[in-house]
Amino acid sequence: MNINFASDNAAPVCPELMAALATENNGPRLGYGNDDTTRRMEDAFRTLFGCDLKAYPVATGTAANVLGLATMTPPYGSIYCHSGSHIQEDECGAPEFYSGGAKLALLDGDNGKIYPDTLSNALLSAGKGVVHHVQPAAISLTQITESGTVYTPEEVSKIGNIAKEHGLGLHMDGARFANAIASLNCHPADVTWKAGVDVLSFGGTKNGAMSVEAVIFFDMEKAVEFEFRRKRGAHLFSKQRYLSAQLEAYLENQLWLKLASQANAMARRLAEGLIKMTSFQPEFPVEGNIVFVHLTEELVSQLEQAGFLFYVMGTRDQAKVRLVTSWNTTTDDVDQFLNIVSA
Amino acid sequence: MNINFASDNAAPVCPELMAALATENNGPRLGYGNDDTTRRMEDAFRTLFGCDLKAYPVATGTAANVLGLATMTPPYGSIYCHSGSHIQEDECGAPEFYSGGAKLALLDGDNGKIYPDTLSNALLSAGKGVVHHVQPAAISLTQITESGTVYTPEEVSKIGNIAKEHGLGLHMDGARFANAIASLNCHPADVTWKAGVDVLSFGGTKNGAMSVEAVIFFDMEKAVEFEFRRKRGAHLFSKQRYLSAQLEAYLENQLWLKLASQANAMARRLAEGLIKMTSFQPEFPVEGNIVFVHLTEELVSQLEQAGFLFYVMGTRDQAKVRLVTSWNTTTDDVDQFLNIVSA
Amino acid sequence: MNINFASDNAAPVCPELMAALATENNGPRLGYGNDDTTRRMEDAFRTLFGCDLKAYPVATGTAANVLGLATMTPPYGSIYCHSGSHIQEDECGAPEFYSGGAKLALLDGDNGKIYPDTLSNALLSAGKGVVHHVQPAAISLTQITESGTVYTPEEVSKIGNIAKEHGLGLHMDGARFANAIASLNCHPADVTWKAGVDVLSFGGTKNGAMSVEAVIFFDMEKAVEFEFRRKRGAHLFSKQRYLSAQLEAYLENQLWLKLASQANAMARRLAEGLIKMTSFQPEFPVEGNIVFVHLTEELVSQLEQAGFLFYVMGTRDQAKVRLVTSWNTTTDDVDQFLNIVSA
Amino acid sequence: MNINFASDNAAPVCPELMAALATENNGPRLGYGNDDTTRRMEDAFRTLFGCDLKAYPVATGTAANVLGLATMTPPYGSIYCHSGSHIQEDECGAPEFYSGGAKLALLDGDNGKIYPDTLSNALLSAGKGVVHHVQPAAISLTQITESGTVYTPEEVSKIGNIAKEHGLGLHMDGARFANAIASLNCHPADVTWKAGVDVLSFGGTKNGAMSVEAVIFFDMEKAVEFEFRRKRGAHLFSKQRYLSAQLEAYLENQLWLKLASQANAMARRLAEGLIKMTSFQPEFPVEGNIVFVHLTEELVSQLEQAGFLFYVMGTRDQAKVRLVTSWNTTTDDVDQFLNIVSA
Repeated sequence: MNINFASDNAAPVCPELMAALATENNGPRLGYGNDDTTRRMEDAFRTLFGCDLKAYPVATGTAANVLGLATMTPPYGSIYCHSGSHIQEDECGAPEFYSGGAKLALLDGDNGKIYPDTLSNALLSAGKGVVHHVQPAAISLTQITESGTVYTPEEVSKIGNIAKEHGLGLHMDGARFANAIASLNCHPADVTWKAGVDVLSFGGTKNGAMSVEAVIFFDMEKAVEFEFRRKRGAHLFSKQRYLSAQLEAYLENQLWLKLASQANAMARRLAEGLIKMTSFQPEFPVEGNIVFVHLTEELVSQLEQAGFLFYVMGTRDQAKVRLVTSWNTTTDDVDQFLNIVSA
Repeated sequence: MNINFASDNAAPVCPELMAALATENNGPRLGYGNDDTTRRMEDAFRTLFGCDLKAYPVATGTAANVLGLATMTPPYGSIYCHSGSHIQEDECGAPEFYSGGAKLALLDGDNGKIYPDTLSNALLSAGKGVVHHVQPAAISLTQITESGTVYTPEEVSKIGNIAKEHGLGLHMDGARFANAIASLNCHPADVTWKAGVDVLSFGGTKNGAMSVEAVIFFDMEKAVEFEFRRKRGAHLFSKQRYLSAQLEAYLENQLWLKLASQANAMARRLAEGLIKMTSFQPEFPVEGNIVFVHLTEELVSQLEQAGFLFYVMGTRDQAKVRLVTSWNTTTDDVDQFLNIVSA
Repeated sequence: MNINFASDNAAPVCPELMAALATENNGPRLGYGNDDTTRRMEDAFRTLFGCDLKAYPVATGTAANVLGLATMTPPYGSIYCHSGSHIQEDECGAPEFYSGGAKLALLDGDNGKIYPDTLSNALLSAGKGVVHHVQPAAISLTQITESGTVYTPEEVSKIGNIAKEHGLGLHMDGARFANAIASLNCHPADVTWKAGVDVLSFGGTKNGAMSVEAVIFFDMEKAVEFEFRRKRGAHLFSKQRYLSAQLEAYLENQLWLKLASQANAMARRLAEGLIKMTSFQPEFPVEGNIVFVHLTEELVSQLEQAGFLFYVMGTRDQAKVRLVTSWNTTTDDVDQFLNIVSA
Repeated sequence: MNINFASDNAAPVCPELMAALATENNGPRLGYGNDDTTRRMEDAFRTLFGCDLKAYPVATGTAANVLGLATMTPPYGSIYCHSGSHIQEDECGAPEFYSGGAKLALLDGDNGKIYPDTLSNALLSAGKGVVHHVQPAAISLTQITESGTVYTPEEVSKIGNIAKEHGLGLHMDGARFANAIASLNCHPADVTWKAGVDVLSFGGTKNGAMSVEAVIFFDMEKAVEFEFRRKRGAHLFSKQRYLSAQLEAYLENQLWLKLASQANAMARRLAEGLIKMTSFQPEFPVEGNIVFVHLTEELVSQLEQAGFLFYVMGTRDQAKVRLVTSWNTTTDDVDQFLNIVSA
């Protein structure tokens, strides 16, 4: 029997969303989003964020990111992002494909974050207006970051101000946005449109959905071409109702935050357990549902034999282990893991 | 209460596939297709077609078509297709996008079909090897066609021979492949790999699935780059297991053919009913689950008021109506429709 | 010794432009168009057209066309053009490449022309605003056409009005623009900006230049992104001064019209000679420097043996011959040709 | 009167090439490279490199680079290059455009060079075969580098071996290839095909040509698609003869090496002069025709007032000056410059 710390996308679908799919499966509906479930879903997002917006369901996190970014970035543009970001490392060039060949401009930064000074300096030497150079067009932040840390509203605002100053779009890859809000305990508006975010990938798949993300346009002008780009990217579902139904159930009664809070709590429990054992300190502050820790080769083998699923970065003799908790991770899962490590 | 003749993608999901999703939702699995359900699904396709092959699930018909075509067509290539085909008319330029800018070379032909002579003549004047002209790279057939007709094995073979002779890939858009096989009552191999088809979009969504199509590579060399193109197109699902589970249930006990047979039977019943009323002859031979018929403006209004959903092509006073039957269309649905028309 | 009726681009460079290159070759200049020759050249175009504009030299006609069109057409757009136009037939998919995958919407029309009704009807059924369909973005006219005919100011204006009405850009492929103006004997403004043209490919190479075309933006807003697209298309010359010098000399003392008038006069002489021989009527009205005529297989062989260069369309036994005159075609060249045909 | 140290592309055309253009301008020729001058030019390259090859003239260095790279790199591929290379910094995203969205993988390295260990380590962690990551496809070296240094045959061979081991194409950006060979005093084959280079951008424009580069395919299989990509990129000249004539004259009697030797000698003279003044040491070894040196703000102003053209990197109070010598730089030019600096 496996215990999953490999990824939050390896977890099953939560029962509330399975129920919503069953409920939706009732009679015919016109396709491509011309259905009431989709309309209710979009309204639910307006209520959640407290502002007018456009919300489009797509089925993968990469689709959400790159379709959003493509509306902000001309082919001769560049997208500023962290050097370890998902759009740079794990999307097989999808941002370049969807933007028609834009360049990702990579920024280093501790704990998986972009820092305002780093960004400002990079923009100063980017050659704006000079025809030999790709032109800064957008910034993409990952919330929570790939290192498992969370941008505060203040941090996002500072980046948002730089975006405004330079006329750039601000995109947020929120594949784990729920974990961020559950961690910050702030209003979702505080780290998004109020802080300058124009387009948000609002993740569902990593937090209990079957496969759905919403692309949220706070800058509704940028949405104009989204619909054509989505269709042309083959991401418009004829039976969109089943995506919308997932999202509607996900937002209902703050389910999305409940699921994420459980995952976050389990990551904290894991981190606290490791911190107590002085030899295994988490590599980054554990603010969401991801823990990185260096383990011995022997421990890695023991854990694998005990049925734990997780990813090992680097060589096994210098194993850096990534542990991701999910909506269905239990205290028992965590404690069994800690017991082996501390043995 | 609506009765759906608008599209087979407006129908709900069949109960067997809902059940399969529920069954699949059981414990964690590694993502991106590294799961047993995906492996069983691919094997089921091998059994079905009686040959080795690669089978990849994607979520939309457009994705299946354009990812398949992109593996066959260089950016400076051209794809020969019917002037009314889905890839030309209804995909917002997705084939151009995924191929990096290839051109669709349009062929006219009665009943929605490409005829061998038309194709051969077009290829003769295409300027093969001449640098000023895009280079013929692939042919795409739609089975069943947009007009609701079906290519026989002999017809596909003739096109397949031309493809071979000119070194072109042969793609089949089988969004309604099930309706074709149910109509032809032949082995699926007979109109695909045995007739020269290299890549098949094997549709599920229009025939009772929630959202899944399989891209079948009979030419397995062409599959090499598919996996990278799918990821980069943002069509690789982390929770692919739920796509694979749909396909597995779809193939089990010939469910796919049972569903399509019902849809086809209802279209035939509709066509026969219309034929009896001499003033409303179907525009094309009704061989699958689509009926085109010219109705009066008055009839269109009456039918709409009675709750029937369908698309009207052209102006309402010269209404050409498209009627699509589905896996869940009943004889009662058809008879109610006919009653109004014949009244 | 060959006599060239093959193409106006097979002719050598006229002496005035060779002299201009020699004059320009004098001391260092900053690169990429930051030079006085380029500034004078752009001013000369402003004087010529009697309006403000931006003028950019590039080295090939295809580059001029596709860079201009790319500023008007989003990737999900379509460009309306004649089915026999150069951008469709002879640029190996360059418009698709530079636009990021837009579609060419082909219009038939006698004498190589697009007619207003044909265009209007096509736009009505294009599905504007509907996400499944590529969106009309631009119209491209060829002046003179591939059939050797010339659009009048009235004809262009009618197309220009349709463009305005539908919010489309209007592009003119003027690879042989000089031949059109020499034929119409009108002000260059009359068939361009006054008739609704936004961007003009102003040809030089086919009319005595070594290799230079100017992309003229009457709609200067559309020029904003041109400079980045040109650089990124690898069409920004470091030694742009040598392109600009050609254009400057080309415009000086109406040289461009003198050269084109000679070519046109020779085509007329050829046409009139053929018309007199009742069996060889030109296929299209001869309004510029191109004559199409059906000749016997025997005549084709005789002419080739006599050293005439020309292209034969179709099979040799039903030879359709294209004859293109150039700035340096002489009456003697024409008369020798006619002598053989009439013998 | 200006003295040019701004760029070798700010220099005029050398007299031998102007003469070649005049000689070529003699009677009609069929277009698009179907001419004898082009055939002789290609043979001259075969003789020069001592092997069979394909040689294609294009008009800009960027075109040569990106068309060559596009034949080696699928859209989901990556190109390993120096972080300061021209293809990354100065081509406005042209490599991404021409490859259909490939990614440049940036490598740091002293003196503008890629070192074998850096490259090997990067390739080890690139995720070859893993669908989430772009796939290593090509390596691009710049010879001479942007820092003015030269790769030895041994250095290129080591990179060539890594390319072979990993199945990658090896591209050389030889915009200043002549300066490299003049510096190394080796056979051109030694740093190209014998060292594993598949495709070479053989520069002319920076070394006395009007505007021509040759793309040399030692790996002739990679040339198959080049011709279509060149046309589609709008880089096939109808009057290609004038590009070929430049290249033919450039190779004749080792003119290319004579021109580059003069430029190199002047850079050495400049460097030696600076080295003697102990406060102004060149930043990199001066092995070609480029010298980088930090000068005071006051000196920069004085030099500019004296008519010297050059680029200042960074802020003026910490001026890093780039000085590029050309085929027509004289000892007097250099000495005047040194006199001001040493005053």
